[in-house]
Formats: sequence, C-alpha cells, structure tokens
Amino acid sequence: MKATMMHPGGTITLEERPDPTIRRPTDAVVTVTAAAVCGSDLWRYRGVTPVPDARPIGHEFVGVVEAVGEQVRTLHPGDFVVAPFRWSDNTCPECRYGVQPSCRNGGNYGAPDREGLPVDGGQGEAVRVPLADGTLIKVVEHDESHLPSLLALTDVMSTGWHAAVSARVGPGATAVVIGDGAVGLCAVLAASRMGAHRVIAMSRHEPRQRLARAFGATDIVAERGADGEAAIAELTGGLGPDSVLECVGSAQSMQTAFGIARPGGVIGFVGVPHEVELPAETIFGRNLTVAGGIAPAREYLPRLLDLVLDGEIEPGRVFDLELPLAEVGEAYRAMDERRAIKSLLRVPA
Amino acid sequence: MKATMMHPGGTITLEERPDPTIRRPTDAVVTVTAAAVCGSDLWRYRGVTPVPDARPIGHEFVGVVEAVGEQVRTLHPGDFVVAPFRWSDNTCPECRYGVQPSCRNGGNYGAPDREGLPVDGGQGEAVRVPLADGTLIKVVEHDESHLPSLLALTDVMSTGWHAAVSARVGPGATAVVIGDGAVGLCAVLAASRMGAHRVIAMSRHEPRQRLARAFGATDIVAERGADGEAAIAELTGGLGPDSVLECVGSAQSMQTAFGIARPGGVIGFVGVPHEVELPAETIFGRNLTVAGGIAPAREYLPRLLDLVLDGEIEPGRVFDLELPLAEVGEAYRAMDERRAIKSLLRVPA
Repeated sequence: MKATMMHPGGTITLEERPDPTIRRPTDAVVTVTAAAVCGSDLWRYRGVTPVPDARPIGHEFVGVVEAVGEQVRTLHPGDFVVAPFRWSDNTCPECRYGVQPSCRNGGNYGAPDREGLPVDGGQGEAVRVPLADGTLIKVVEHDESHLPSLLALTDVMSTGWHAAVSARVGPGATAVVIGDGAVGLCAVLAASRMGAHRVIAMSRHEPRQRLARAFGATDIVAERGADGEAAIAELTGGLGPDSVLECVGSAQSMQTAFGIARPGGVIGFVGVPHEVELPAETIFGRNLTVAGGIAPAREYLPRLLDLVLDGEIEPGRVFDLELPLAEVGEAYRAMDERRAIKSLLRVPA
Repeated sequence: MKATMMHPGGTITLEERPDPTIRRPTDAVVTVTAAAVCGSDLWRYRGVTPVPDARPIGHEFVGVVEAVGEQVRTLHPGDFVVAPFRWSDNTCPECRYGVQPSCRNGGNYGAPDREGLPVDGGQGEAVRVPLADGTLIKVVEHDESHLPSLLALTDVMSTGWHAAVSARVGPGATAVVIGDGAVGLCAVLAASRMGAHRVIAMSRHEPRQRLARAFGATDIVAERGADGEAAIAELTGGLGPDSVLECVGSAQSMQTAFGIARPGGVIGFVGVPHEVELPAETIFGRNLTVAGGIAPAREYLPRLLDLVLDGEIEPGRVFDLELPLAEVGEAYRAMDERRAIKSLLRVPA
C-alpha cells in the first residue's frame, strides 16, 4: 500500500509500505477512505518537534473495516468506521473515567504498539488498528456529504469540544476562543452548541472569521496581546468572560487567557503547551480554574456522531482543501503557508 | 481599646488604640467576643512575608454589633455576628458570581479602606467593619458551646470547604488532603461531609492524625515526598485519587499533589502559593484540573452556619489552645512552635 512518511527535518514522502494484516486477535485492519493533516503534524513538518527517524504519520482517518481479529466483537468487515486519534481499550480504569488518552494499554498511530508490532499512520491506504473494539466507532448509515464532518470528529471537533467541556461552558455563559485554527473554530462550534450566550472568537483572518461566525461566534476580536485583552474587557463590561477556550498552546495565547478570564472563571486549554507558564499567584488571587489536555475523542465520539448525522453540527466545514493522497505534500504546504485551514486527503491516491 | 499590632520583623504587641466609630453610613462597629490567630499571620510573624510598617493584625473574629451606620439594613446593635476574613459589598458582579475575595469594593482587615479610613484588625477589642450588610452574618441563636466553631467559620473552615469545592469532591470520591494545619483538618471535614467515600489525610503528627480521623479521615499517610506518593498510589490501587486538596502552598506539597492525582483528577489548592510551579505539560498530558484560591467565606458562611448550629460539623475542634487577648504573644508562639494547632483568643483581655 501507499502511506505517508515523515522524515527527520520534516520531509514528507508517499512511499510503498507493507499491507497491514491482523497481528493480534483484538486488531482490525481498516481501508482508509479519507484522512486529514493535523496542526500537530505541522510541528514536525516545521522541525519544531524533532523527528528522530522516519515514521508513518497521520492520526485522523475514517474508512472501511477490511478484516478483524478473532476476539473483535463489535465490528465486521464492511463496517464504515471513525477512528479517534489514539487507540485505547476503553475498559481500563482510566478509560472508564473518560480519560482514554491515559489508557493503560493504548497508544498512538505511526508508532509501535506495546508488543513492538508496527501500527500504521493514518495518512495511508490502510491501518492496522489495535484494540479495535475499544477504539473504532461504527457508523451505521451516512451519506457522502457527511464524510468531512465524520473525519473532523477524529480529532479537531473532539478537541474543540474538549476545550468547551474543560472550560465548563454552559447555557448563558460568555466564552472567548483563542486560536482560529481548525480546533479553535470547532471550539466556537462547541461553545455555541453548549448554549453559550456569547461566543467571542479571536481571529485576524477574514475567511476564518467568516467560518467562526457560521459556527456561532457572536463577536470577533481581531486584536492580539494587550489590545486584544482590552477589546475583550470592553465587550464584557470590564468583567471578563466566564470561560476561555485556549486552542493554541503558546506562551502568548496562555498569557491572553489569564489576562481576560473573570474572577472565578475557567480556562480550558487544548493547545499542546509550548514553553507555557501557568501563573499560580494569578490563579490563586482570582480563583481561576485551569483544565484541559489531550481530548478523550473516544469518549465524545458517540454523542458528536449523533450531532453530525442529525445535521446539528457540520464541523467538516473546517476542510477548505481537498486533495488525493498522492498530493499529500501540497496538503501540508498549504496548511503550513496558511493557504488552507485544514486539508482533507481522499484515499486511495 | 486594646488591639494587637504586628511590627516589622514580626514582633507582636498589644497596644492601646482609638475606639472605632462609624465613619461611613454602611459601617458597623463590632465588639469582639473571640478572635483567632491564622496560619497566614504566622508568615508575617516569622518574617517570611515582609511587614513594612506596624499595623493592626487579625482577620478572624466573632462578636456583637455595637453600632451601625444609617444605611445598614440587616444588622442592629446587639446582634451576634460572624465576620468572614475579608469585607465585601456582596452586590458587585464578582460577588454575585460568588467570588467575594475579588469584590470591587472590598478589602482586608487591618488596612485602610478605599477612602483611606483605617479598618481595625480582628485581634482586638473592637472592629469597624465597612460594608456591614454585605459582610457580616447574623447568628440568630446559639449557645456558648458553638463559639469555637462559629469562629472557625470566619476562615479555616470556609477555606477547607473551598479546597473541597475547588477539588470537586463528590459522593463516592477518593480525596487526599495535603497539610494537617487547621485548614487541612477542615478540608478533611469538608470532603467527608461532601460524601467522599475515602478521605486520606497526609499527616505526621499524632494529635493532628487523631483529629483528622475524628473529622472523617478514613486513612492516614505519614510519609512525605516520594514515599508519600508511593503510599497514596498503594492505597488507591495504583490509580490515584479523584481529588487532591492542597492546603499548604509550598513547592513540595504542590509537587506531591501533581504526583498523586489520577488522570482526569482535580487539584483544589487553598494554600497561599510560595514559589510554586504549575507544570503545564503534566496537566495537559494527564488531563488534570487545577482550581482554587482565596476562599469566598462570605459565600459559604450561611450554609456552614446551618451545619454548625445543627450540630452536623464541629470545626471548632481545631482550637486546642484558648487564651485571653492579653496573652496574644503566647497564642502566636504556641502555633509557631507547633505546640498548638490553632489559638483562640477570648476578648476582652
């Protein structure tokens, strides 16, 4: 099969790789229908996150079950499935608490499993998925128009949802979303869906502002830094928002989050932190709550799937570039150069 | 009147001071019946928190209303009142959100108010209380045996309660309390009262262990540092507690909190942070929640007052030393030398 490889220094290639097969009785092999490029893939592409040696890449995909191991009970060949961005058993104590990213037996796509057997990346023609029952969500019926939104559930929509859950967005709340990438836009959608009365999106880019409004943003703040904080204060009567959804992970965005949250407010952060400092004195002095982390996509997926299939949310609108797998290099480039919010790869090439 | 003064370097004196009078129409003057020494007073006594110039000290007191300003509506001379450890209007947006420590018009005892008028400290014979309607809680009926518990509500019990609220302790939860001072012991009581199935108190001191058990601790861990973390892991089946109530504020205690919380768990912290670092990567990687700060005692007081008067909680047991105001120096010394958990001062001297 063909699959995308990430090389040291961030070079992307599409290569011939061994077809995945069932290696463990709990495995499924999935033929990929569509895959996506993640903002976190770009950290490697740009050389910010080191890539020690060449490895398969991609962790956002949907597809069709081709084969299952003998212990798999909930899936059958021919099933259309959505794969959350990590695999997990969904039965260990951590999973039962809804923290599947901390699954005792789980792992990441593109890295060896705990027995040392290779697990494919998602940006390829097929993937061996370990712990298939605990990982994959079967979609009973859908039409082609749902495909981008189903793909968005694998990561960005689940992560945006996690930002809103972590920030305890509720009916009537005022929420500010920092970050206008695909996750930030999905966080706007999540906050709106959870009943926030006011959703303020911080974005400088007109196409993203437009999508934020379509996703339910009631206000846009284009300024950053101190000017951005002043604009938020102005919009919230000097008090600050109840909930801040931090979807970047940089020192500056976190500083903004702490600068704007009202006393007693909550900061939900889902951007992978890069040299971020959390100011204990500010949290203490203003009674803030800070929560967040790697989204438990597997936990949220059943509910989000219903919302997509019922036409209640359409997170697939974050994909503004669609290419065949063969053009995966351009899919990365377009996102890197901010020509695209998010790239969808049709598979096979 | 006589009142306690804190001098640079941490010297304590009992001095003659002007009797407080009504200075603003929203004031009340309270004749103090009993006052307490707070762990945070000790930071100044020990020279850890600098004292730039002599000032009245004390912020935990109960007493009888002696006079009220013309705009005071809920209080009358002769009322017995409990004073939360900060004064607040209880009507501004921050107060309405239940974050009275961030009151726009509030302040601390022992420091000038916003008009520059002096406000007395609590460890004296009388106190001018600004914004009396928003601050003081009237106790309709009580007997002498309730007095220590009513005094405990002014700060330590409210703060322990805040630790449990911040750590989202709920029925069936496993909670660990770090710190066996009066606040930590009250946090044990709060966690138990909120229905925690298991309350693990970390304490090395036998009398405090005994009180922790009386307050509902199901387990005691005497070890600290890595040994303490290992003991907690052992007690919680390797998973870690749902809730950690951090009641110290030191770098070591916070490190322990992050070392033990289960994935998806919550750390509620009420110890004033001293050179504490909050590890963003750990929070992110394990989906932790960190919340806490200065307790909104005014918010919790009505409910806690009912619990005391109904005999449901007896937080006054944290007082293991009772002295007349004239012996305030010994009240500090005994706590500083850990001969007493907490000192109660009977007023007048």
